Amino acid sequence: MSSIKNAFYAQSGGVTSVINASACGVIQTARAHTDKIGTVYAGLNGIIGALQEELIDTAFETDDAIASLRYTPAGAFGSCRYKLKSLEANRSEYERLIAVFKAHNIGYFFYNGGGDSQDTAHKVAQMGEQMGYPVTCIGVPKTVDNDLPVTDTCAGFGSVAKYVAVSMREASFDVASMCATSTKVFVMEVMGRHAGWIAAAGALAADETHDIPLVILFPEVKFDLAKFLGAVDEKVKHYGYCCVVVSEGVKDANGQFLAEAGGKDAFGHAQLGGAAPVIANLIKDNLGYKYHWAVSDYLQRAARHIASKTDIEQAYAVGKAAVDFALAGKNAVMPTIVRLSDAPYQWEIGSVALKDVANVEKMMPPDFISADGFHITPACRAYLQPLIEGEDYPPYHKGLPNYGVLKKQLVEKKLPEFVV
Amino acid sequence: MSSIKNAFYAQSGGVTSVINASACGVIQTARAHTDKIGTVYAGLNGIIGALQEELIDTAFETDDAIASLRYTPAGAFGSCRYKLKSLEANRSEYERLIAVFKAHNIGYFFYNGGGDSQDTAHKVAQMGEQMGYPVTCIGVPKTVDNDLPVTDTCAGFGSVAKYVAVSMREASFDVASMCATSTKVFVMEVMGRHAGWIAAAGALAADETHDIPLVILFPEVKFDLAKFLGAVDEKVKHYGYCCVVVSEGVKDANGQFLAEAGGKDAFGHAQLGGAAPVIANLIKDNLGYKYHWAVSDYLQRAARHIASKTDIEQAYAVGKAAVDFALAGKNAVMPTIVRLSDAPYQWEIGSVALKDVANVEKMMPPDFISADGFHITPACRAYLQPLIEGEDYPPYHKGLPNYGVLKKQLVEKKLPEFVV
Repeated sequence: MSSIKNAFYAQSGGVTSVINASACGVIQTARAHTDKIGTVYAGLNGIIGALQEELIDTAFETDDAIASLRYTPAGAFGSCRYKLKSLEANRSEYERLIAVFKAHNIGYFFYNGGGDSQDTAHKVAQMGEQMGYPVTCIGVPKTVDNDLPVTDTCAGFGSVAKYVAVSMREASFDVASMCATSTKVFVMEVMGRHAGWIAAAGALAADETHDIPLVILFPEVKFDLAKFLGAVDEKVKHYGYCCVVVSEGVKDANGQFLAEAGGKDAFGHAQLGGAAPVIANLIKDNLGYKYHWAVSDYLQRAARHIASKTDIEQAYAVGKAAVDFALAGKNAVMPTIVRLSDAPYQWEIGSVALKDVANVEKMMPPDFISADGFHITPACRAYLQPLIEGEDYPPYHKGLPNYGVLKKQLVEKKLPEFVV
Repeated sequence: MSSIKNAFYAQSGGVTSVINASACGVIQTARAHTDKIGTVYAGLNGIIGALQEELIDTAFETDDAIASLRYTPAGAFGSCRYKLKSLEANRSEYERLIAVFKAHNIGYFFYNGGGDSQDTAHKVAQMGEQMGYPVTCIGVPKTVDNDLPVTDTCAGFGSVAKYVAVSMREASFDVASMCATSTKVFVMEVMGRHAGWIAAAGALAADETHDIPLVILFPEVKFDLAKFLGAVDEKVKHYGYCCVVVSEGVKDANGQFLAEAGGKDAFGHAQLGGAAPVIANLIKDNLGYKYHWAVSDYLQRAARHIASKTDIEQAYAVGKAAVDFALAGKNAVMPTIVRLSDAPYQWEIGSVALKDVANVEKMMPPDFISADGFHITPACRAYLQPLIEGEDYPPYHKGLPNYGVLKKQLVEKKLPEFVV
């Protein structure tokens, strides 16, 4: 075995339009330090790739292919929704990870994900120590939900925020055009099952030169039908139309997701999903206004074509910092974004111990939501504004973004099969 | 009254991300010929503005404001869904239009819309003759549905096509990342109640370097559940995932819109709209695959941020040509796009008599849909490809497109009120 250890990198959970920019930061930085880091292996479909010894050898990818990751959305190596159990509940999984790492001379573990992933990375670090095969474990923050603690924001959030703000500004122009004789209310559903960060970004559609009537439904605020209808009606009476942003996580008075309020369709099947159509129907039935509704779903988190330049720079920076940290001898930490000032926006890379990140959710602070519960406060705007700034367009070919496609050459397996 | 006649311009029907580029073409060209055309008045909310004598005096808009129309989505002067009845059924409306035109010395009528609008423009031309107040009536083609005859394409379609293709390519990267443990089918609903042009554009997401498993549901093809499930299942088994584009106009075996197959929700209200959730539920119930679905609705036709440069150039060109035609003494015509070659794409402005456009719908030719009914043919791709080419980004301010906002100063009324 060479004394130069290889690295393992994996993408975890729901992907974003910039998680590959973090991968680009990891791999390019590792390639710049071949005296200290050998090959970067990427897990095929995340941590499952490590457990099943399905390791993509990134050495087969050209420098151009790795550079294309910076502008390619989603998880180029595949991601997975798979949370390792606790050390007590399933020690064998951790032992298997260490065995795979040992078999492929892997001494660095870079795990690109949200809170659960940071928890896993933390446990792998502990397990390596216990088993006498120490692994340097560095988390790389990622989540459109913006719910990781300590860090100012999470790579992925700024771009989905920009998508939502741009889309709502554009749709508002459409509704304003149509409202004299047709649609008066437009409802757009956005992601965010627990926290209203993405819904809040919809408020950025309006600014000092774009006076757009908006009503925002946050998951943090219990849905009050009468109050909501009153807010919408007031906007329609004043402006002629109203735009509603509804978080998928909004719950009714009984604590049930609005999105699950659907009944059965004509085929006799349960209607699942869609807070927007539920809201739209409530408006029509109670106020009689013609509506349109949109659910952007994956489009919002995959929209690399309109990603935030700030977000991409931060996504790359946390990937690069993860490798720099490892080279500097740090362990069981995650790079963070530290905000130095709002305007002009200045930030630098910080660091936090994985044990302080794992399983902590950052919710919207109460002073970010207006007293009526339907808008954001100036403090929230000051926080959000810089995160959506800057454009960073991908290259186009024949009218479409020419996103990168990797070879994904797998390393030969050395161990017996492992069933996940 | 001055011998130099003023012009009236109005936007009609569902707006697009480039209809204001046509307005820009009309007004800038008129401003370049003040020796022949006086003021351009724009109808507030379309033809209703003419009937109610609510005329926006565009002379109050600066040259910069008019230039901003080129990159501002939706209808800057307001649009309306209002179809004038036949001359026999409601002669008084036509008489009113002529009266308003006479009162404001309007000798040119530029009507920016779809098939119905071209019909109206044609009738106004006839009525002016009959009433001894001849008005030069020129149609300006517009519709995301791409269903106007004679013209190669309609201003507005190329941009919605580009939005759909870009969005589907991006979402496909997302699903491909997630499919090992989570979402296997992604369903995206697009506009097009009668014709499948927009759905067809989803097929452009895949190309020689992006092998994306797609199934497209066209309104032209009767929905066959078993065949559809078979097509999806085959893709999932081969690729691990599948992307479905469903037109809002798809109908079931009984001729009912799938989007109207919803039952009642938990509030007891009829569920209206959404072919995508119906399709998604059918997949889950019959194949058991985890799904996600999106309905982009107004977002697709308002998405100026990702508009097709080709489309914008054509939208501007038909606006400019409308004024050029009027100055050349033509009447009751509409500028068209004439395709000279597919690759390289070459086109020029042509002309068609309004009577040959009115009330004719251009459907997808049968040889544009594959034999299995779920894909497009090479002929269709050759037709669609150039229409989405080129990017033309709007200016940004603080992370968002800085779309234009007009003064919309109304002219003083001279006539008694008219109730629409």
